Amino acid sequence: MSSTNTKRGKIILFGDSITQMSFSAADCGWGAWIADRYQRRADVLNRGFSGYNSDWFLKFAATDEGQADLFDHDNVKIVTVFFGANDASDLTLNPRHHVPLERYKSNMKEIASLARGNFGEDINIIFIAPPPKDKYKDKATGKLERTLELSGQYAKALTEVAKELELPCLDVWSKMQDSSSSTKPWQEYLSDGLHLSAAGNKFVGEALIDLIDDLLPELAVTPCTYTGNINSSSRSSISMRRIAPWHDEIDHSNPEKSFRNLSLE
Amino acid sequence: MSSTNTKRGKIILFGDSITQMSFSAADCGWGAWIADRYQRRADVLNRGFSGYNSDWFLKFAATDEGQADLFDHDNVKIVTVFFGANDASDLTLNPRHHVPLERYKSNMKEIASLARGNFGEDINIIFIAPPPKDKYKDKATGKLERTLELSGQYAKALTEVAKELELPCLDVWSKMQDSSSSTKPWQEYLSDGLHLSAAGNKFVGEALIDLIDDLLPELAVTPCTYTGNINSSSRSSISMRRIAPWHDEIDHSNPEKSFRNLSLE
Repeated sequence: MSSTNTKRGKIILFGDSITQMSFSAADCGWGAWIADRYQRRADVLNRGFSGYNSDWFLKFAATDEGQADLFDHDNVKIVTVFFGANDASDLTLNPRHHVPLERYKSNMKEIASLARGNFGEDINIIFIAPPPKDKYKDKATGKLERTLELSGQYAKALTEVAKELELPCLDVWSKMQDSSSSTKPWQEYLSDGLHLSAAGNKFVGEALIDLIDDLLPELAVTPCTYTGNINSSSRSSISMRRIAPWHDEIDHSNPEKSFRNLSLE
Repeated sequence: MSSTNTKRGKIILFGDSITQMSFSAADCGWGAWIADRYQRRADVLNRGFSGYNSDWFLKFAATDEGQADLFDHDNVKIVTVFFGANDASDLTLNPRHHVPLERYKSNMKEIASLARGNFGEDINIIFIAPPPKDKYKDKATGKLERTLELSGQYAKALTEVAKELELPCLDVWSKMQDSSSSTKPWQEYLSDGLHLSAAGNKFVGEALIDLIDDLLPELAVTPCTYTGNINSSSRSSISMRRIAPWHDEIDHSNPEKSFRNLSLE
């Protein structure tokens, strides 16, 4: 029973600070949102690296430490790839973080290729485009090193890469702006013009669950049809197996019976 | 560089529904709180099982699936053990969940012993006592199957076990009531009289970090002394090593240099 088919799954989040900070309990982190959804089914491993662009991520991936940290995991079910917020920095104002658009595209393909090589050809990869940018100023210079227009170019490029590779892409840049209204302008999804606010984290968490429900239904967790509850035994999933019997499946006068089939005879 | 000394650490949370639900992004989950604190240092693995008492947890632990899910992990740094909310149920009104006090104590010792046997004798085990109980009624019967007094007996028993084993214990039952005031009564730490509200999750997350800072300083993450920031490279930890160079350590004109020492020569 310890084969990868019966073990708890893993969901791995590759990205920059928007991923590294995605377990913020105070700010409703989108990574925690996913971990909560997959309770008793999958561990969510945060592999976000603040301040990294996709170049640096790939350089780390090429090291022994990077190989161990990013790829030496079994039973991985989903990988999210969420770069662009740093890559799209203005070349002149922020050459440190800037990655040229064409190299960003090839880097995204390389990360997908590494995921397939390490986790198997059928690994479910989900690209996530950078959020729209509000006025995020370099604290020292006050210059607009990150702009809405530049991040939009990288978001568009990512959707093209996803189409070419036939992979799903969550276009956060467009979706946040499309959902903008006078009562909730898209700027409220950001805490500082670059990183996600609690509202922004919730938006990304919900949008990612919606994408999985729509495009990758095998991996979806379906809430109880009567209560809408995702914590109870009445929720289900086709390929994200639950670990250990639900408590209401256990006969308290003979609990051994419920656990017996979890060991090899 | 792929030895356990240089790999990302792991923190494992053993418990019942209060643990299983501890990544709730909407309710500021205490597990997510810990994961956020240890970003770039440790993966936090949620091994909470809703509705389980310590008897059922041990029965699961004895199976092949349980061994794989709970114990087949390397580089584990901290294990939290958070049972009692179900065990302390009234024997007559809820015989299904009730575990006698003496067996609860011996179960806690057995879980500590299993953690040591699987993760090493020096593993850092932290016991967490059940929260105080407000009127949590069985939805069918409306009877008081869980009470403040009963949960208090189990909390007290756990502090005795911890003292005997010379292990730290976070006495949530006492701490929440001690912090009670007319403006913030302890009942507000609970969402339904049993589970944690957002305020209760924050209370447990902060109290656990405080306990680690005080009693297990080697494992603490120290925020930047100037900014108080825990996301930046200025924070430090003695034994919870950070993974990959911080972005401000990378020379963008020669990034290879920063990553070179992460591979075996």
